[in-house]
Amino acid sequence: MVLIVQKYGGSSVHSIERVKQVAERVVATRHEGHDVVVVLSAMGDTTDELLDLARKISPFPHPRELDMLFTSGERISNALAAMAIRDLGAPACSLSGPQAGVFTTAEYGGAQIVEVVPHRVRRELDRGRIVLVAGFQGLNRDTDDITTLGRGGSDTTAIALAAALKADVCEIYTDVDGVYSADPRIVPSARLLDHVGYDAMQEMAAAGSRVLALRSVEYARRWGVPIQVRSSYGDKPGTTVSGRPDDAGAEPSRITGVAHDLSGAKVTVHGVPDGAGAVGRLVRAVADAGGEIDMVVRNAARPDDARADLTFVLPEQGVAAALAALDATRAELGFERVSHDADVGKVSLIGTGMRAGPGVTATFCETLAAVGVNIEIMSTSEIRISVLCRTAQVVDAVRALHTAFDLDATEEALVHAGSGR
Amino acid sequence: MVLIVQKYGGSSVHSIERVKQVAERVVATRHEGHDVVVVLSAMGDTTDELLDLARKISPFPHPRELDMLFTSGERISNALAAMAIRDLGAPACSLSGPQAGVFTTAEYGGAQIVEVVPHRVRRELDRGRIVLVAGFQGLNRDTDDITTLGRGGSDTTAIALAAALKADVCEIYTDVDGVYSADPRIVPSARLLDHVGYDAMQEMAAAGSRVLALRSVEYARRWGVPIQVRSSYGDKPGTTVSGRPDDAGAEPSRITGVAHDLSGAKVTVHGVPDGAGAVGRLVRAVADAGGEIDMVVRNAARPDDARADLTFVLPEQGVAAALAALDATRAELGFERVSHDADVGKVSLIGTGMRAGPGVTATFCETLAAVGVNIEIMSTSEIRISVLCRTAQVVDAVRALHTAFDLDATEEALVHAGSGR
Repeated sequence: MVLIVQKYGGSSVHSIERVKQVAERVVATRHEGHDVVVVLSAMGDTTDELLDLARKISPFPHPRELDMLFTSGERISNALAAMAIRDLGAPACSLSGPQAGVFTTAEYGGAQIVEVVPHRVRRELDRGRIVLVAGFQGLNRDTDDITTLGRGGSDTTAIALAAALKADVCEIYTDVDGVYSADPRIVPSARLLDHVGYDAMQEMAAAGSRVLALRSVEYARRWGVPIQVRSSYGDKPGTTVSGRPDDAGAEPSRITGVAHDLSGAKVTVHGVPDGAGAVGRLVRAVADAGGEIDMVVRNAARPDDARADLTFVLPEQGVAAALAALDATRAELGFERVSHDADVGKVSLIGTGMRAGPGVTATFCETLAAVGVNIEIMSTSEIRISVLCRTAQVVDAVRALHTAFDLDATEEALVHAGSGR
Repeated sequence: MVLIVQKYGGSSVHSIERVKQVAERVVATRHEGHDVVVVLSAMGDTTDELLDLARKISPFPHPRELDMLFTSGERISNALAAMAIRDLGAPACSLSGPQAGVFTTAEYGGAQIVEVVPHRVRRELDRGRIVLVAGFQGLNRDTDDITTLGRGGSDTTAIALAAALKADVCEIYTDVDGVYSADPRIVPSARLLDHVGYDAMQEMAAAGSRVLALRSVEYARRWGVPIQVRSSYGDKPGTTVSGRPDDAGAEPSRITGVAHDLSGAKVTVHGVPDGAGAVGRLVRAVADAGGEIDMVVRNAARPDDARADLTFVLPEQGVAAALAALDATRAELGFERVSHDADVGKVSLIGTGMRAGPGVTATFCETLAAVGVNIEIMSTSEIRISVLCRTAQVVDAVRALHTAFDLDATEEALVHAGSGR
């Protein structure tokens, strides 16, 4: 007998009608002879509505109470779905995160799962029940307080449960058909990928793909849980994300897709005195201010120049804090000034073993040049090439790269190393 | 240091503004130097709204899931109130019923509190915090399921917590000033009682007074918890409900008030054969059908009649089931027919040691006769006299009794036994 964990996001349960549809899908899976554990997010905008309520009460709602407030959202969607499933004739019961044995760290609003002890879930499964677990929440054992997880928390709950239950697969139902070779909204010819390895999926997520949160992929990889990303609207198989060997780099090079991210901003520290670990100090200052630094470049105007500019990219909402943190170090480090620029976008090409194909980077640069995209910053890794460019040039860049690397083709394309294309 | 448990009902927290007002009252109590535990109901109509949601999902929502759904309501109101209290500078934390150690029986929707283990509450109090506990809910230890209590569940939660914590008083905040000698809406001269004994309060609740649920008073009496019924709108002291000695019947007789109840219906079984415990069988049949029988009268048309009519009163919503249950026994018991009548009201005079004053019953009957109220059924106990009459006559009956027994007076009146008034 196969054990399947299914996770449905807020958009999949945003209305009573949708909740009933989810119930039908769950029962259908059950009738195929599988054990089913369901993780639901809160209905549609419930969490936002609860946040509005909290804001009306308090300008800065206390995080602990905010978590207590938020967790009511999943309670509601789970209880309603359990009722709908029971009405379809299948035994079911809903469990809160703590009841399901989801234990987390103590950070309210951004807790991490430390352990899942699914005794209760297993017991209910053994009684022949479909078990619904409230996602996005858990219990911190030290404080006995209820916590909520960070972004992608329901995905993480489902993946952690699948790992603890040794489930055969964790199905993540969303409002897209799966993982595409690029955002279909800007690349009509984007291809639905039937399989993506953990490595590539992590890079895709880090590069701006919104299908799965980066942390969720990291959890799945760590625990070796195969993920099936599917649409809750149709019956398409979607995309499998796993550590299947054929993605470990058997071929010299294999391109997964093109991702883009408009959420970053560029910050430049001008005239940083040479040496003395000034760069390290600056990066540390920004990091301590909560800034997640993505790309860093140090460039001296002239080889003999004693001063250089330090440029890095971080999420736009982190810029203000970063600027303040940098300003505080100015007297000590003696740089000239700081400037920032939010009108930038990041375009990334993701694939395995790209350095094995030297032609890849060349083709990448030639392609962007051909469509007039000016590369402001570039960084490469074994499985990713990213560039920073003007926001207005992102779409052209993504489309050009998608075509240049044969991603429009129906068959996954091998990049012929050194072919000079 | 005094420990006070305060309970606020749904109407006291029906809006963000009201939640803030409750927070101010709680903090004010705290600033008087008291430890405070707060029990909140769900905001206004939350529970009804959740029930509507459930009904849209399922014609007969499963009780277990309904409880899981409902408990989100108190979670929300408690978290919001805790935020508001923190914003007023007082440390506070909200706890779910299970976190607060409220353990119940297993009946979903109507569970009873079996034990309160307030370790966590005590710990938070010792940390100097105001503790908010979600009312109306608990945990059944055998099933590890969340349950909700029956009617008056939040009051019961507060009283049980007060008992477990050995609190000095349990303040029940509501939308009336306290317990009146009659319903002020129909008796303008009704007097606010500064004190009512457990006995009398139980009878008042049983006789239709809606201020406190009967079960709550029974809990308070069993655990000896003094209750202070107060309005959440003003600063009036309200009514104390306790077992204070001066209510144990020191005076020959003492009238507490007049209560009325329009929720009952009269059911009559005509032509019940004499003897053979037919009456017992009929009452049992109704009770097994869930009917809470209030008054029972067996009257033979003529002394020599072998058949008699059995009349009893039960809540209107229980009539249909009762009629079905009675009908099922007809062939066996051979009675003639069953009739029912919902156009009835019950009027009761409550007081301690009334039988010690034989004049009371006489005055009671004379008073009703004087205003043309026809007594259909009458039952008396040591501390209550109740009659059933036409619905249209209830108001006249209540007003006349209230005046006749000197309840309009500002000082509590002693009924001069045998004075013939």
